[in-house]
Amino acid sequence: MLSLYTDEYYMKQALKLAEQAFLEGEVPIGAIIVSNNQIIGKGYNQVERLSDATAHAEMIAISAASAYLGTKFLEDCSLYVTVEPCPMCAGGLYWTRIGKVFFGTSEPKFGFNSREMPILHPKTALSGGLLENECRELMQKFFLSRRK
Amino acid sequence: MLSLYTDEYYMKQALKLAEQAFLEGEVPIGAIIVSNNQIIGKGYNQVERLSDATAHAEMIAISAASAYLGTKFLEDCSLYVTVEPCPMCAGGLYWTRIGKVFFGTSEPKFGFNSREMPILHPKTALSGGLLENECRELMQKFFLSRRK
Repeated sequence: MLSLYTDEYYMKQALKLAEQAFLEGEVPIGAIIVSNNQIIGKGYNQVERLSDATAHAEMIAISAASAYLGTKFLEDCSLYVTVEPCPMCAGGLYWTRIGKVFFGTSEPKFGFNSREMPILHPKTALSGGLLENECRELMQKFFLSRRK
Repeated sequence: MLSLYTDEYYMKQALKLAEQAFLEGEVPIGAIIVSNNQIIGKGYNQVERLSDATAHAEMIAISAASAYLGTKFLEDCSLYVTVEPCPMCAGGLYWTRIGKVFFGTSEPKFGFNSREMPILHPKTALSGGLLENECRELMQKFFLSRRK
């Protein structure tokens, strides 16, 4: 029997949030946090709307999940984010001790992992390339639209 | 003539916020952001109160300053923080392109600079050791009190 609760399913939910960011003129990145097969936090990039450089998808999702659980630790949770996190977001994830981080497409210039910065908590499992094409194409579409 | 607006003066304001964090049982770190000799953002560690691992003094101060100015960029601003920023906060400061960062005491284990991570924006000037003793003693007092 097929389970609804696959990593791909959750990344698709993150992609939907990224598409919402795109529609609002934001760099199209979305993130969700899952605990026991339940989405307990979500966020998409709102840097322009909030005029706040810290309003990345992951940071918003972390605050939402922590508020839901009432704890600063997210050890039994998984984050799904469409683009490799930057050092700020990886640093936020460090403090949560989150269990797993899945990202879609890598970010050679701004990604913490691409820049070889060991920022995540040693207990956090990192996995990249989930729905990579869809996540990358949305980013490319955004940056192409900005150049016109 | 002596000016009120010295770097020491601003760090003392950050220290007052750190003392407030101490009183509330938080790791005692405070931060302020200054633009044109005016304090436009402040924050102190509220990780426990908010149950949110991202609620560091610097992140709160960044969001406050950005909301005040209505812009995500803080190029003409200076941050004063009592303790060397972690990678998350340094990453947040990167995105703001803040002009100057002054910190009090260094953080060999968690500080981005002590860990030799080049996270800040290349245009940001970094300076450590401002009111170092007062900032460090407050941290030591906190961790001693927790061991009792």
